[in-house]
Amino acid sequence: MDFRKRITDYGVNTGILPRGPRNAITDVEGVRVGHCTLADGPVQTGVTAVLPHGGNLFREKLLAACHVINGFGKSAGLVQVEEMGTLETPVLLTNTFAVGAASEALVRHMLADNPDIGRETGTVNPVVCECNDGFLNDIRGFAVREEHVLRALASASEDFEEGAVGAGRGMSCHQLKGGIGTASRVLEVEGASFTLGVLVLSNYGQLEDLRVDGRHIGPAIGKIHPPQDEQGSIIAVIATDIPLTERQLGRVARRASVGITRTGAFIGSGSGEIALAFTTANRFRHHETAPLLSLSMLNENHINLAFRAAAEATEEAVLNSMVRAEPVSGRDGHIRHSLAEYAHLFARQ
Amino acid sequence: MDFRKRITDYGVNTGILPRGPRNAITDVEGVRVGHCTLADGPVQTGVTAVLPHGGNLFREKLLAACHVINGFGKSAGLVQVEEMGTLETPVLLTNTFAVGAASEALVRHMLADNPDIGRETGTVNPVVCECNDGFLNDIRGFAVREEHVLRALASASEDFEEGAVGAGRGMSCHQLKGGIGTASRVLEVEGASFTLGVLVLSNYGQLEDLRVDGRHIGPAIGKIHPPQDEQGSIIAVIATDIPLTERQLGRVARRASVGITRTGAFIGSGSGEIALAFTTANRFRHHETAPLLSLSMLNENHINLAFRAAAEATEEAVLNSMVRAEPVSGRDGHIRHSLAEYAHLFARQ
Amino acid sequence: MDFRKRITDYGVNTGILPRGPRNAITDVEGVRVGHCTLADGPVQTGVTAVLPHGGNLFREKLLAACHVINGFGKSAGLVQVEEMGTLETPVLLTNTFAVGAASEALVRHMLADNPDIGRETGTVNPVVCECNDGFLNDIRGFAVREEHVLRALASASEDFEEGAVGAGRGMSCHQLKGGIGTASRVLEVEGASFTLGVLVLSNYGQLEDLRVDGRHIGPAIGKIHPPQDEQGSIIAVIATDIPLTERQLGRVARRASVGITRTGAFIGSGSGEIALAFTTANRFRHHETAPLLSLSMLNENHINLAFRAAAEATEEAVLNSMVRAEPVSGRDGHIRHSLAEYAHLFARQ
Amino acid sequence: MDFRKRITDYGVNTGILPRGPRNAITDVEGVRVGHCTLADGPVQTGVTAVLPHGGNLFREKLLAACHVINGFGKSAGLVQVEEMGTLETPVLLTNTFAVGAASEALVRHMLADNPDIGRETGTVNPVVCECNDGFLNDIRGFAVREEHVLRALASASEDFEEGAVGAGRGMSCHQLKGGIGTASRVLEVEGASFTLGVLVLSNYGQLEDLRVDGRHIGPAIGKIHPPQDEQGSIIAVIATDIPLTERQLGRVARRASVGITRTGAFIGSGSGEIALAFTTANRFRHHETAPLLSLSMLNENHINLAFRAAAEATEEAVLNSMVRAEPVSGRDGHIRHSLAEYAHLFARQ
Repeated sequence: MDFRKRITDYGVNTGILPRGPRNAITDVEGVRVGHCTLADGPVQTGVTAVLPHGGNLFREKLLAACHVINGFGKSAGLVQVEEMGTLETPVLLTNTFAVGAASEALVRHMLADNPDIGRETGTVNPVVCECNDGFLNDIRGFAVREEHVLRALASASEDFEEGAVGAGRGMSCHQLKGGIGTASRVLEVEGASFTLGVLVLSNYGQLEDLRVDGRHIGPAIGKIHPPQDEQGSIIAVIATDIPLTERQLGRVARRASVGITRTGAFIGSGSGEIALAFTTANRFRHHETAPLLSLSMLNENHINLAFRAAAEATEEAVLNSMVRAEPVSGRDGHIRHSLAEYAHLFARQ
Repeated sequence: MDFRKRITDYGVNTGILPRGPRNAITDVEGVRVGHCTLADGPVQTGVTAVLPHGGNLFREKLLAACHVINGFGKSAGLVQVEEMGTLETPVLLTNTFAVGAASEALVRHMLADNPDIGRETGTVNPVVCECNDGFLNDIRGFAVREEHVLRALASASEDFEEGAVGAGRGMSCHQLKGGIGTASRVLEVEGASFTLGVLVLSNYGQLEDLRVDGRHIGPAIGKIHPPQDEQGSIIAVIATDIPLTERQLGRVARRASVGITRTGAFIGSGSGEIALAFTTANRFRHHETAPLLSLSMLNENHINLAFRAAAEATEEAVLNSMVRAEPVSGRDGHIRHSLAEYAHLFARQ
Repeated sequence: MDFRKRITDYGVNTGILPRGPRNAITDVEGVRVGHCTLADGPVQTGVTAVLPHGGNLFREKLLAACHVINGFGKSAGLVQVEEMGTLETPVLLTNTFAVGAASEALVRHMLADNPDIGRETGTVNPVVCECNDGFLNDIRGFAVREEHVLRALASASEDFEEGAVGAGRGMSCHQLKGGIGTASRVLEVEGASFTLGVLVLSNYGQLEDLRVDGRHIGPAIGKIHPPQDEQGSIIAVIATDIPLTERQLGRVARRASVGITRTGAFIGSGSGEIALAFTTANRFRHHETAPLLSLSMLNENHINLAFRAAAEATEEAVLNSMVRAEPVSGRDGHIRHSLAEYAHLFARQ
Repeated sequence: MDFRKRITDYGVNTGILPRGPRNAITDVEGVRVGHCTLADGPVQTGVTAVLPHGGNLFREKLLAACHVINGFGKSAGLVQVEEMGTLETPVLLTNTFAVGAASEALVRHMLADNPDIGRETGTVNPVVCECNDGFLNDIRGFAVREEHVLRALASASEDFEEGAVGAGRGMSCHQLKGGIGTASRVLEVEGASFTLGVLVLSNYGQLEDLRVDGRHIGPAIGKIHPPQDEQGSIIAVIATDIPLTERQLGRVARRASVGITRTGAFIGSGSGEIALAFTTANRFRHHETAPLLSLSMLNENHINLAFRAAAEATEEAVLNSMVRAEPVSGRDGHIRHSLAEYAHLFARQ
């Protein structure tokens, strides 16, 4: 079993747009991803940090928007993203009960770089998204602490692992092993080239519904390994260098659900499904003094390309999160198998 | 070519839940559907009416909710449905430019039965949903008038046609012929049996993306008949006899998008995609005098069944709208072929 | 009684920002307003048209946003404004049952100038807002027809009447006579000067709650003229030349409710309260070919000025709609008195 | 100066509905409120806990809804309240940077009583709302820890303090001292009596805009004590025993903004204004097994009474939060005066 293989290595091509060089969210220039993984017996959890650019995000905010596909979730920071249209911290992903600790850690991290916060200027809005990894992880143990957040932030790089790592360590997808996956698409608009990348934390869906590239393989897997339990939720972070407004980013975020449901899920009730999209092409300075700002935006007549890219990359990121995840045993003998173990059911070569 | 065959007659089974006796929205007791079809050279359009119950809807309102999947649409009446959670008229479907005439016709129809409206009591909220059939239909001709609305209302029945009829006459789906389709699912909840039915007006998607039951057949069809142009939008009306609150109905409505995207679409920009859900199980009297009312609702722990039913029935209703539609020639020599012509690409028997 | 006097002529100054030269929505350059008034016995209704600029709005769209304060209303076109962030027709105001006829008339008006609509390009989104004038007007009579819409559009001018004119003819506010009112504010941002204007169609509130400039005068008026019945709703159209994004326009629109509630209302249930805001500073060409567009926006650090202007101008527009309205007698002997008749209760000079 | 006097003790009566016996949110049976106040030099902050009923909230959830008036805020837990319509923890109020610590503390508190959370059943959604008290409080010091949350929860009682206590310790309102305030209203509906109570954490508005009972007294106070700086935000928690659905609760929550703006504010940009409403009349058991539940709801024809109560009680709660707050000196010599010091400007007796 080779958990380094990505879904395209199995000959499965979702969609028609070309991929970026890494086929990762970090194909969007400036974006970096870091993990801190906790894997020790019943502790199977962690933190993943998405850094939208290399500078001080509070001082140079990015345009952003989010979309709540299904709101059975405890993510922090979304209300202000919607109102102000900006992202002013890295995006953290972690388990549900770690949102509090991760929020405080992220605020402390931002304060360290910004002595004016809470003094001469207002506060800062930490964005922390979560899924429930309680099937594998002893989520009641509150294993994630500030140091793990800082480690995830510090390790951020353009190259990063997928699968059962970082926040993805304890997650389940279609009752198999889920976790972190990524993919990207390159768009040509009138000669200009743009990139859109997606990173998912996958933790949703039932085995009986699983489809890979349209093939309904879930039931066959269920005969080999009857599924245990069911948890739900997914976070999709969409990064792009296409100049988009907050409204356009919201529209792009809503297309994440297309990619998610292509694997056969119907968006279960107890599932916190959230998409967050940001663009690196428009930055706002916190201490801006100019009365008027100039914003670049994509001609809406071309936005279908971005929608298609978001749908395709999300589907592929989910599949990558599954085939790149090794099987994981967690608390109380719970086990999740890897989709990679069933490659014969979907590999095209 | 037999346009009476439905998608299940080709051996294609979407989903796992059982179907109702008609496999139609009218499996929900009391729901009736009527059409008025205008098909004369460049005029290829019409009206479809969904009657939620057989009584006076203004006096006995039903709980309802809607969800805007993509808001590039001109449907009327949704704002009040969201605020008040009730439906007080039949739901009309028609072409985009007929919304005005249909709204007035529907108000006049309601006034005829309710002499108190606009006198002793307030006004009435006509719900009229639309898609743009301008590819086949001379939409600038405003062919739909009050008489056609009244005819659609008067012809409402438990048995009704699918395909290129009523509002579906001029619609296109995945650049093939779209229109009216329906399907239903039966749910067992702790021994009690409920029905959920969907009626769609399909008018969205590109041919290259078309999937039937996961099989990506669009490109193969494109080689036989290169597609003309692209229009977008879909209306999904969901009826059920499950007791649901307005919030629960909204959640069910949001699952329509799962069924819609299963045919391969990514929810294009210029597409008015709207889902409207109502339940026949909770009625509110306009002139209610009791201070407190009793409402029955599904235990949320069981709502996944309703979500699955909505997703499955919507997908099947879209496929029915396509295979049951005969090819149609409209204005300026425009033609839409029927998916039924390509049955060899997807039939399983 | 002089119904030409505006609220400032009574010494009542709401707010602290300076007014524009006309103290009207038409202080925003390019904006014009036209009325068609129907006043004949039981027919007391009409149409008001707000033209956002003098060109072809379909070809040169403006950025816009709306906010539903209370959704017991039947306005048309809001869904697409929210999704696409653009306004592509004049904004019509009329009575509730005239929305259908006005929508069709507005579409026909747009088609006349745009032969490509419904042919080479998509459809057009008519924006028609409404209040229920059924207390004074025989709303069941459907008096408003296409010719009245065209007359309102044709009569648009920078100078226009307030009070019981156009769509305001039959409206009631705090159980006195309401209707059309307007006001404007001038903002200085770092040396640059901008204008924000509001036009309201007022039709909400109970007499007992009425406050003018904080003074609770409603009960005293009620002793003189006990109020008849109660209807509800208000439309506030906000125009500005401040460069704002769709999100910022939405935020400005939400401040209309501040002005509305300052007259003492609590936003009743049966009230369609809608605010629509647009800026003339950013235009989008329908047939734009450039892949990227440049948008100017106000530095959010200065947006409070726009919020204050919206709140102040809305309150003043409501008061103008009342003091400038002559008393009107309508169907079935119903009468609404004018706030101007009670000037002694609020005049400061 | 007597900071025990409430706004009615000054002869100021907002509204017309009668008050409950305590004129407090705890007039709604079962509701209790507790504070933990930290006041030590530059540390001027705390925690306030609202306990909706005396049982185990996770096992017996209440129907709830929230409304984001202005989303420049960092409150936690609102997304799930909106999706599921239920409240399953006490509501905590604290300062912006304490949301993380308070969330974790609240989760731990819930876990202690519910061993099945994160094991046999899903997770729990902590609701923590916040305002920025950084003007008076050294918010960068993270003074609020788990023990303070537990102390606030443990001290909950039907009688509780207003003003500069609990989460209100460091808050500012109209550039005077703000904090915790409460009020209630009693409604008679067809012979049945109901109570609606509001608790606010007030922290918004500019002095120049301040109105008490319509009287514009802010400028006069500004002449005595020129205001320092400006912060913004308010949390309004609305409790009632009226049987309401989630949709109805959302409508009630939206009327909080009426009360808030009656003090003269225009809802500034940098202000997190949130209203959360719950009813004690409908409870849902987490482990409910019945397939169908019965819900009681107010006939919508009577809902204006609840709207009026919410508007009135919110305004009065804000005024109570101000007159009952003693002046507070905090970090860096910052001081907020009390509205009670200017009683001569607004007292009616």
